[in-house]
Amino acid sequence: MSDKIYPTPQDAEAAFYEALERGDYDAMVSVWADDEDVLCVHPGGPRLRGSDEVLTQWKRIFEGGQRLQVRITHQVVISGMLFAVHSVQENITIEGEGPAPQSVVATNVYQRIGAGWRMIVHHASPVPAAAPPPPTEARVGGSATLH
Amino acid sequence: MSDKIYPTPQDAEAAFYEALERGDYDAMVSVWADDEDVLCVHPGGPRLRGSDEVLTQWKRIFEGGQRLQVRITHQVVISGMLFAVHSVQENITIEGEGPAPQSVVATNVYQRIGAGWRMIVHHASPVPAAAPPPPTEARVGGSATLH
Repeated sequence: MSDKIYPTPQDAEAAFYEALERGDYDAMVSVWADDEDVLCVHPGGPRLRGSDEVLTQWKRIFEGGQRLQVRITHQVVISGMLFAVHSVQENITIEGEGPAPQSVVATNVYQRIGAGWRMIVHHASPVPAAAPPPPTEARVGGSATLH
Repeated sequence: MSDKIYPTPQDAEAAFYEALERGDYDAMVSVWADDEDVLCVHPGGPRLRGSDEVLTQWKRIFEGGQRLQVRITHQVVISGMLFAVHSVQENITIEGEGPAPQSVVATNVYQRIGAGWRMIVHHASPVPAAAPPPPTEARVGGSATLH
């Protein structure tokens, strides 16, 4: 694991999205806490648990060679002494595809570990194209209705 | 807002899922912190922010009359003095539909407020039917590929 230190949760978040855009595996490693209970949910994907599983998947994604541009908006920060929750909208453009970004909402949780902050949770899910939520329910899998 | 006190994050979580199953709006109100930065993402839905928006949507969902049974599995707990993160799989059966549950992964964040704990974040997203994640990428909206 890396011994890089991120003095604030915002520094760790900036490093996370820079690593994602650059496809930089070593930088991604340095962002995450080394723990069996870190958690990562990619958009539309299952939950990954533990540094090994989470980082292996990032390695696979980066090896796929696809490059993304990610513009972060709508950030909400909930901060404590040892934990911070950042909720953001990721506006993602895929290199070589059209200019219209796709929207993903992400819940990122950071923990203070020693002198610095590391990511412990990244939960991302696609935002539906239509802006307003359906009035009485939310969709699962585009068909059945759930909470 | 309710003055009900949940002595632990687990108590708040149990109350959350009981309220969801019963379609009990007042119980749901008692689970959430009263704050403009609480956040809720329903499966496949956009981000809702603030107690008013979050609770209004729960009211609409409950008024829709659909009843759910939710069995919680795969719980991972990350705890601090003032914050707790619970990651769970929700196995949801819709009343009147087939017995096969649908799977949702949820990141629930609780904050200690005074003597008790309240929910501040609920981020839920559908788990794909196929168990293993795709090897190099995760899907967005069932078509385009993203991180």
